[in-house]
Amino acid sequence: MLLRLNALPGVRLSQARDFQVHVGGAEANVAAGLAALGHRVEHVTVLPASALGDLCLADLRRSGIGVTHVLRTEGRLGSYFIEHGSGPRPAAIVYDRAGSAFAEHADRIAWTGLAGAARWFHLSGINLPLSSQTSASALRAVEAMSSAGIPISFDVNHRPSLWGDRVAEAARLERQMMDAAEVLFASAGDLSRALGRCVDQQNAAELAFASFPKLRYLISTRRAHRGDYDQSLSMQVHTSDGAYETEATPVGLVVDRIGSGDALAAAALDGIMRGASLQQIAEAGLAAGILKIGIAGDRWVGTRDELADFHSGIGGDVKR
Amino acid sequence: MLLRLNALPGVRLSQARDFQVHVGGAEANVAAGLAALGHRVEHVTVLPASALGDLCLADLRRSGIGVTHVLRTEGRLGSYFIEHGSGPRPAAIVYDRAGSAFAEHADRIAWTGLAGAARWFHLSGINLPLSSQTSASALRAVEAMSSAGIPISFDVNHRPSLWGDRVAEAARLERQMMDAAEVLFASAGDLSRALGRCVDQQNAAELAFASFPKLRYLISTRRAHRGDYDQSLSMQVHTSDGAYETEATPVGLVVDRIGSGDALAAAALDGIMRGASLQQIAEAGLAAGILKIGIAGDRWVGTRDELADFHSGIGGDVKR
Amino acid sequence: MLLRLNALPGVRLSQARDFQVHVGGAEANVAAGLAALGHRVEHVTVLPASALGDLCLADLRRSGIGVTHVLRTEGRLGSYFIEHGSGPRPAAIVYDRAGSAFAEHADRIAWTGLAGAARWFHLSGINLPLSSQTSASALRAVEAMSSAGIPISFDVNHRPSLWGDRVAEAARLERQMMDAAEVLFASAGDLSRALGRCVDQQNAAELAFASFPKLRYLISTRRAHRGDYDQSLSMQVHTSDGAYETEATPVGLVVDRIGSGDALAAAALDGIMRGASLQQIAEAGLAAGILKIGIAGDRWVGTRDELADFHSGIGGDVKR
Amino acid sequence: MLLRLNALPGVRLSQARDFQVHVGGAEANVAAGLAALGHRVEHVTVLPASALGDLCLADLRRSGIGVTHVLRTEGRLGSYFIEHGSGPRPAAIVYDRAGSAFAEHADRIAWTGLAGAARWFHLSGINLPLSSQTSASALRAVEAMSSAGIPISFDVNHRPSLWGDRVAEAARLERQMMDAAEVLFASAGDLSRALGRCVDQQNAAELAFASFPKLRYLISTRRAHRGDYDQSLSMQVHTSDGAYETEATPVGLVVDRIGSGDALAAAALDGIMRGASLQQIAEAGLAAGILKIGIAGDRWVGTRDELADFHSGIGGDVKR
Amino acid sequence: MLLRLNALPGVRLSQARDFQVHVGGAEANVAAGLAALGHRVEHVTVLPASALGDLCLADLRRSGIGVTHVLRTEGRLGSYFIEHGSGPRPAAIVYDRAGSAFAEHADRIAWTGLAGAARWFHLSGINLPLSSQTSASALRAVEAMSSAGIPISFDVNHRPSLWGDRVAEAARLERQMMDAAEVLFASAGDLSRALGRCVDQQNAAELAFASFPKLRYLISTRRAHRGDYDQSLSMQVHTSDGAYETEATPVGLVVDRIGSGDALAAAALDGIMRGASLQQIAEAGLAAGILKIGIAGDRWVGTRDELADFHSGIGGDVKR
Amino acid sequence: MLLRLNALPGVRLSQARDFQVHVGGAEANVAAGLAALGHRVEHVTVLPASALGDLCLADLRRSGIGVTHVLRTEGRLGSYFIEHGSGPRPAAIVYDRAGSAFAEHADRIAWTGLAGAARWFHLSGINLPLSSQTSASALRAVEAMSSAGIPISFDVNHRPSLWGDRVAEAARLERQMMDAAEVLFASAGDLSRALGRCVDQQNAAELAFASFPKLRYLISTRRAHRGDYDQSLSMQVHTSDGAYETEATPVGLVVDRIGSGDALAAAALDGIMRGASLQQIAEAGLAAGILKIGIAGDRWVGTRDELADFHSGIGGDVKR
Repeated sequence: MLLRLNALPGVRLSQARDFQVHVGGAEANVAAGLAALGHRVEHVTVLPASALGDLCLADLRRSGIGVTHVLRTEGRLGSYFIEHGSGPRPAAIVYDRAGSAFAEHADRIAWTGLAGAARWFHLSGINLPLSSQTSASALRAVEAMSSAGIPISFDVNHRPSLWGDRVAEAARLERQMMDAAEVLFASAGDLSRALGRCVDQQNAAELAFASFPKLRYLISTRRAHRGDYDQSLSMQVHTSDGAYETEATPVGLVVDRIGSGDALAAAALDGIMRGASLQQIAEAGLAAGILKIGIAGDRWVGTRDELADFHSGIGGDVKR
Repeated sequence: MLLRLNALPGVRLSQARDFQVHVGGAEANVAAGLAALGHRVEHVTVLPASALGDLCLADLRRSGIGVTHVLRTEGRLGSYFIEHGSGPRPAAIVYDRAGSAFAEHADRIAWTGLAGAARWFHLSGINLPLSSQTSASALRAVEAMSSAGIPISFDVNHRPSLWGDRVAEAARLERQMMDAAEVLFASAGDLSRALGRCVDQQNAAELAFASFPKLRYLISTRRAHRGDYDQSLSMQVHTSDGAYETEATPVGLVVDRIGSGDALAAAALDGIMRGASLQQIAEAGLAAGILKIGIAGDRWVGTRDELADFHSGIGGDVKR
Repeated sequence: MLLRLNALPGVRLSQARDFQVHVGGAEANVAAGLAALGHRVEHVTVLPASALGDLCLADLRRSGIGVTHVLRTEGRLGSYFIEHGSGPRPAAIVYDRAGSAFAEHADRIAWTGLAGAARWFHLSGINLPLSSQTSASALRAVEAMSSAGIPISFDVNHRPSLWGDRVAEAARLERQMMDAAEVLFASAGDLSRALGRCVDQQNAAELAFASFPKLRYLISTRRAHRGDYDQSLSMQVHTSDGAYETEATPVGLVVDRIGSGDALAAAALDGIMRGASLQQIAEAGLAAGILKIGIAGDRWVGTRDELADFHSGIGGDVKR
Repeated sequence: MLLRLNALPGVRLSQARDFQVHVGGAEANVAAGLAALGHRVEHVTVLPASALGDLCLADLRRSGIGVTHVLRTEGRLGSYFIEHGSGPRPAAIVYDRAGSAFAEHADRIAWTGLAGAARWFHLSGINLPLSSQTSASALRAVEAMSSAGIPISFDVNHRPSLWGDRVAEAARLERQMMDAAEVLFASAGDLSRALGRCVDQQNAAELAFASFPKLRYLISTRRAHRGDYDQSLSMQVHTSDGAYETEATPVGLVVDRIGSGDALAAAALDGIMRGASLQQIAEAGLAAGILKIGIAGDRWVGTRDELADFHSGIGGDVKR
Repeated sequence: MLLRLNALPGVRLSQARDFQVHVGGAEANVAAGLAALGHRVEHVTVLPASALGDLCLADLRRSGIGVTHVLRTEGRLGSYFIEHGSGPRPAAIVYDRAGSAFAEHADRIAWTGLAGAARWFHLSGINLPLSSQTSASALRAVEAMSSAGIPISFDVNHRPSLWGDRVAEAARLERQMMDAAEVLFASAGDLSRALGRCVDQQNAAELAFASFPKLRYLISTRRAHRGDYDQSLSMQVHTSDGAYETEATPVGLVVDRIGSGDALAAAALDGIMRGASLQQIAEAGLAAGILKIGIAGDRWVGTRDELADFHSGIGGDVKR
Repeated sequence: MLLRLNALPGVRLSQARDFQVHVGGAEANVAAGLAALGHRVEHVTVLPASALGDLCLADLRRSGIGVTHVLRTEGRLGSYFIEHGSGPRPAAIVYDRAGSAFAEHADRIAWTGLAGAARWFHLSGINLPLSSQTSASALRAVEAMSSAGIPISFDVNHRPSLWGDRVAEAARLERQMMDAAEVLFASAGDLSRALGRCVDQQNAAELAFASFPKLRYLISTRRAHRGDYDQSLSMQVHTSDGAYETEATPVGLVVDRIGSGDALAAAALDGIMRGASLQQIAEAGLAAGILKIGIAGDRWVGTRDELADFHSGIGGDVKR
């Protein structure tokens, strides 16, 4: 969980006079997406026992996320500052997450006791580089869930700026997570790093399923330039015996780039849990990922019907 | 008249913390457009005798609309909530107009006394489904104006969500209005419903002029997709012995979709009253309809010169 | 549950260009106060199946209130508009709650099934005048809870503007509620109306305990002018064998008047449930009621410690 | 008419990042007050033929003021910038009104033609120092109205900063206006200057009625400190055979100081036109003057009932 | 220096309720760009001794611009009002700069004393039409700098609306500036006017270098329509023995058109002072000019690295 | 230097959706006050080489503070979050300053080189508890300045929450600073701690001058409750042979409590540097301290004249 502060559109961080407040965090965003789709979810994390921790808690609740297992400790709340992009200027982020209550105390989470009530467990790779406590906690979580037979999904979310020169450690830890995951959100680059060999988009799925016996779904996305300063997104879902890839679809006007991957993961996991077809999983994931980009804040807010209507060409219309 | 509350761009209705306040209503929007073009207009309606009714009144006056004939009664103010769209996500509206002072008391308007001073009468089809009082009032208004020889324009504005399964009633009432109108804003679908037979764009004008002896101008618009999530608009003006259709013109970045049709109607009526050519009527109407989309709120705000400059290719420039 | 829209400070409703959005409702406010003090609460109500209903639901969750038993139906969301007061000008409210989903469908709540899991039941008298459905629902709720032996608290919240000339009905219905309540928030005027005889502050408690055998706590407040346009508040708690009255305490600068009584009720109920002394109950209630007035929105937000620190004279200081 | 730009509360002008836009001007404020009380009023002035002139015009209309006789010319719009005060810090104004369309072209107003339709004429002394054109216009206006037998009210509104060292001219011009006025808003200091002799509050009325044969009402106000940084206001109304003075009444929390005197003048003129008693005139004027201070912008917004309720002690309450 | 007040996006000037405050002025914008790129700059101008002058001064300092040589006098601050464009609607400006402290007192600047410490002098042609004082000051400045051997850059910035029918004077004064400039920002039209003969883009550079012996760099830009309501920009840099022209590059979504040319000039001057190649000068200038358009306010805010990254295709991405 | 983020008035931190951005820091606030009074000041500190560091730098410059000696390093920016108080509720601060670039790298400041150009050195005790680097830096700064004969002022600013149980260390370090200071802002409690004996207000000055031979001015303030939730402030200035104490003066409506002490220190230091009388020093300090409370943000913004006008009783007036 992070406090996310963003400058208003068109205003650079160094000029900001006001910040809009959102609450971020990869797993929380996925949890919010799943809650919006009707799932009962709990976010297990550590928050400081301060008014800012209260703010996060209230926000989780607002999104329909259970907070029963949130640990409150002393310490600070990690935060990040966002400047929205415009035309040729990319969005920019200043992270300030070192020394957070989560980074300092994540190892106090009692994962074993939590496995009993769980039916699915999702983890983001962001946990791994933050601190030794958070990586230890992630390992213990995966262990506890694996022992209890709970399916695990893992989104690599590799951020070079967080790992710095600890690439070897990244490879080792991410691979441990991949070993445990039934659903893996990973690029060819992620697989290359974890497997220590060159993986390209052609052989990624084959190698992944060969390397990770537990793996059932490998999911990846592709962004491409489209026109001047616009992008398109496509999504690929692989199983050991089939695959589906959506068309490259324009993302449209960018309101807020952050959280698109998390929204996509939530919709994909929803499909997987509901036994949807590969096509359904991919199209719903793509829809959520793109629709998120038109919503301010880290989280997709919407309904299952909106995911289904995504390709109906009603953009620019009014739904009365 | 409706209180219109819209969430900020990028914010879904279910997340809204602030609403921007505008005053809406099809005829009021048309009236505002005509006032901006120099016409003297009166809006005849019912408003609650509350601070919210005062708000509407002040807003009508601000737009240069006469309020001498606004009836104040007890009751509530109808309202609607808007969420702006973004990319593939359409704008969405939640209506809350049942039981409004207008819906309850529209039949208290004394139309006969008003016909004497009028030179033109414009009516939107939105009046018809709201309540038996509003449809009765619309019928009486049209009768009073017809008897007094006042030209009538009618914009069908058919909203399926307001009619529900009362399609037969819609057909009957809308047809009565069409019978009386000299200027009719109607699509082929509207004509199909009213005439009880299949009308397509090819034969729409022919059938309309054959069916409605009073009709002098039939006006329709066409929206088309253009690129990803963008739209274009074109406008057709038919008389019994000629027609003009504009090119399909991109609407550009959508600031606020609502009221585009009303702006178009206002500019078209202005042209008709001034005896402009079909081309002038259509180009001015199209310009107003598209320029409105770049302005927040329900109403077009601008000048006759801006309608004339519309095709000059100065978009993106600075007028110093 | 109501959508509450308020104009910015210093702006009259008839001038408003922006509304701040809050979610109101007497029981929801009490529930929020109890949740802030650590209680597990469920709000049982009816909300429309619209984006505005979603907004209310999210807001309830944000305040830590359970929404498991919220019924979603068609219909509108009741709302009210507030203009904050200033100096000699009182705050003003325009209600727009007729025909709400709650007013239309409250009788569809299955109270009997809910009594099993409850440990306390709180009801506001606002339910009684809204519609025959809501008053029927209130009666059934009280019956169900009484049968199951669940303690009931009732806050009369008599609003003459909602009752109009139905005073006799008010007296009858409110009395039925009083009969069932163990904790009663009522003024001498409320008792006069219910008992059909003149009750004053001197004999109010005596008569109440004589009339209502179930009654354990009678709670009332007194507002008084203090200086120019300021007010003070005091609170009285009576049991059958004792009473405590706080000092008249200045309310300070008014940020938002609404919800003060609900905050007071929440803190008082917390004290009662925890077996606090009369003095503790009254001082905590008074503190919550006054502290609420310094917070925007309908709900008190704070901690038990802040209630305890209320008289420490730290107003105007900085807590670092 | 002036564009009024004010910094947000607590922000000094030199730090401002946003200005709130209001439209000011002494006579426009009086006109708005009279319109709110049901009078039909026209504001006769000069506005630039620019978007800013349009803004003023729309605002006049919004306040219910007729704009039929507003002249549009080239030139700039006068403006002023306000910083609200706080505690010991007074509000501060930076004027920027030189060279406005009004100052340059006021002498183009054809007053003679306007006298026929008028029933009352109100003028502020602000016109006198602005430019030779505005003072000439004021003289001609008074002449035209006097000739036509239209009663004239004159509010001296003497601003030393606008007159600079032209005190002699001020005395001469203001005296000419006083000679013509039936209703005069003037302090003892104003009378001293105009009459060229020392006038104090004791003999002000006597001397005024002796000097100005047309005078029917002499109205003045008194501000006094009250407590730390608060003020009280009282109002005196004199006729040749009687007087009434209100109590010194606290103004309460200051939202916006500007326009208080204009609101007071409007309510007093309303009373005079309606033949109210001196007490009624004074109490209504005082109420409007103080209630204005709790409203953002230059103009009092309210109802006759609110003026009557002013002393009912409902400040701090909620009017449901 | 001008106070710049802009209405919010989507709001026309005549509807504005809030203005965002920026400080503008061509040379100040160039100075801010140079300061952002690490240069030490002083802005020499006249500001009123008022809170608004203080606001400008604080803003100059904020942008890293030295204010040691700013003269404070009585008088007003020039201002201008902006309405952002949308789609086919161009941005619109209402200037209000007549009679400013700068226009009245620019001739009090003691240029001779300033030349000693200068290493470069930049001037905008906006100075020339404002008043006889500002044009006199510009002439004296150029004289003083020329005498001291300080290189001069001149951006013609010809604004027909400021010159009116004084075209002959414009030609004469602009030509005097061109005579003195080593770096000239001028279009073929500017050269035509100054040289009194028809200059087109083909022969512009040749004629310029033939006419102005001091000239080292001639810089011009070209805007072209691109798609519907979008534009592209290209930039040309000429020396006497070479030239470079960038590709026509889309400007992207327009946040704020104003100041693009000034940003371009700043980056170009930076390149020239650093002895960069023609290509580097042109590409950096184009980047700054386009990046400015995505930033609210008159000034480009950014880093040298961002200019270099401009063509890397990261628009739409997130820089973490 | 700290990033200061505050919730809007009436909004608790845990509810915040927007933060207003200010830049804080005790010495920066004092520096800003001195710059406003015409002094040339440099702020010597460490800021992160990030957009947030840039924001601080721009803000320092805006306030007229020199930034030549600001060191830029890697690391985070310390921050704090403020919730404004209301009535009985105090303002609340959540600090998040651990691990800041300043705390980590303050010892890299080369104080010796800076002493040469200085004429006065001011230090806040906030430096002492932050980290061993900041306390080491403070010691070295004082040493360097003392060696160079630069007068030192020290404001103890003791914050128990920053020292925790390191009281002994606080006493030792603060005493070292007091030993070096010519001007000391300290309470009796501060002196008690430093001198290790009980000091009360009666003997504080005597003991201070006896203990610290360099001391020339001892300055302290007294806050007292005044009425309900209001406070008064008084200020005492002592020299070895005289003293002046202001009256207890009401602080008025609190806009922003933070920075009042720094404003007071700045005005007092200004008086001391200008050789003002004790009364002048105290009255100007008190005025700045109270006027600051009516201004949003950490810093007093104003003029010497406003300090002089403070007692003129113009609060609540309009300065035209």
